[in-house]
Amino acid sequence: MKVKTKDYIVKPDSKVKLKRLNPNDTGKFPDSDEGKQRAYDLLDKQIARLASLQNLLYADGSRALLVVLQALDAAGKDSTIRRVFSGINPQGVRVTSFKAPTPEELEHDFLWRIHRQVPRKGMIGVFNRSHYEDVLVVRVKNFVAKKVWSERYEQINEFEELLTKSGTKIVKFYLHIDKNEQKERFEERLNNPEKNWKFNPGDMEDRKLWSDYEDAFEDVFSKCSSKDAPWYIIPANKKWYRNVIIAQVLIETLESMKLEYPSISYDPSSVEIPD
Amino acid sequence: MKVKTKDYIVKPDSKVKLKRLNPNDTGKFPDSDEGKQRAYDLLDKQIARLASLQNLLYADGSRALLVVLQALDAAGKDSTIRRVFSGINPQGVRVTSFKAPTPEELEHDFLWRIHRQVPRKGMIGVFNRSHYEDVLVVRVKNFVAKKVWSERYEQINEFEELLTKSGTKIVKFYLHIDKNEQKERFEERLNNPEKNWKFNPGDMEDRKLWSDYEDAFEDVFSKCSSKDAPWYIIPANKKWYRNVIIAQVLIETLESMKLEYPSISYDPSSVEIPD
Repeated sequence: MKVKTKDYIVKPDSKVKLKRLNPNDTGKFPDSDEGKQRAYDLLDKQIARLASLQNLLYADGSRALLVVLQALDAAGKDSTIRRVFSGINPQGVRVTSFKAPTPEELEHDFLWRIHRQVPRKGMIGVFNRSHYEDVLVVRVKNFVAKKVWSERYEQINEFEELLTKSGTKIVKFYLHIDKNEQKERFEERLNNPEKNWKFNPGDMEDRKLWSDYEDAFEDVFSKCSSKDAPWYIIPANKKWYRNVIIAQVLIETLESMKLEYPSISYDPSSVEIPD
Repeated sequence: MKVKTKDYIVKPDSKVKLKRLNPNDTGKFPDSDEGKQRAYDLLDKQIARLASLQNLLYADGSRALLVVLQALDAAGKDSTIRRVFSGINPQGVRVTSFKAPTPEELEHDFLWRIHRQVPRKGMIGVFNRSHYEDVLVVRVKNFVAKKVWSERYEQINEFEELLTKSGTKIVKFYLHIDKNEQKERFEERLNNPEKNWKFNPGDMEDRKLWSDYEDAFEDVFSKCSSKDAPWYIIPANKKWYRNVIIAQVLIETLESMKLEYPSISYDPSSVEIPD
């Protein structure tokens, strides 16, 4: 079963209307138990492939991969990380969850705390939220003036270009769910005693601002998707489909990086191991 | 198949002679293909259990787990991390590999760079090498005077006590192989083109210092194994047995921490999710 990742990429400078994209999309997979099972089987194979590519990235040691995850609450950022990245050697993966900035972070430009967390060579960095919050929640809630946030798209593009030119490949995922799906997931958190610590009553305020967030995301997609650092809009109502598309994008991205085992600076046949 | 972890713990203030401990030990598992298969099956179950305990540690949010791995070259630090921790949500695990200190790190006390990397609450931190290098390689190769390194055992104990009292549980593993096993693993790296980037001709110098390293490790075990931050000496010639003991220690350690899902500060039945 082939997953067509190109269907989900945002072309540079294109306009996106989230309302026109179907969060229930399951591509070529039937939306049934059978389709779901096929996706689970595929994901197992994809994770094995990713584990092997991660090993090569680490060995190669000259490049890095930065994965950015953004979404509205309960869209599945945490569960994507758990499902897609469990199975990969954690020595080669570093997840950073960006929360509300600390007082120290607020005393710097918005990219300062981000820059400190970018992956070193050989590593996969996963950002659970990111610098994009500074043109999303910050914009929607008017934390800074429009004059300030409206300059950030360009600043973000320049920052990402710096990383790209220094050997870091960037891929960015928006997990697209609809309001009804969010409601169901909130209800599940409320009703499951092992999950209700994840429920934050404050998230209800963001839910009321749903269309403001959609507008803000649409601007991000139009202004900040480039060939070298593309945005993907992932239909995410069906978690099993979400996972296989994201895994496939990661595989294709790592494969495109032309990674190689490093050449060695000694002659293996001349090495003597002392007793 | 029960794994008896107590057999491998170093009792506080006891003397250890590594030469008397069998690195080929496989406990109650037969050292055969059948024993190996049983260990693989057990490890799958252990990893599932660890994944669930990690989730609870993360939810609980008041404690942390610090896992220290030390060993001679090729004893399996990297492969332990890959085999035991893959399968756990990487959002809850942060691996730090300590290399030779940078110039900036050398301008501080030896615990400075370590302290910066200890796990925050809710997290599992894995140290691939650690502050113990400062009484191992540093001692064996005379990087500092005896007067300096001999004071470090006490400094390490005080540092670990600080972490313990602040809610971080510490477990420390020494992966015990013998010289012959190391030689075979070096040869495999030399002969396998996908592995020879891992071979470092400089490691031959450390091999010649094998018994000096053993002496240094034995002092570490005697001086720095405590009830709250114990050392385990893991027979590690058989990787499959090494993995199940370590996984079992981690499970028992997390279980002993009395973790709980946090109490919530709202009443789930009174929440209304807006449309």
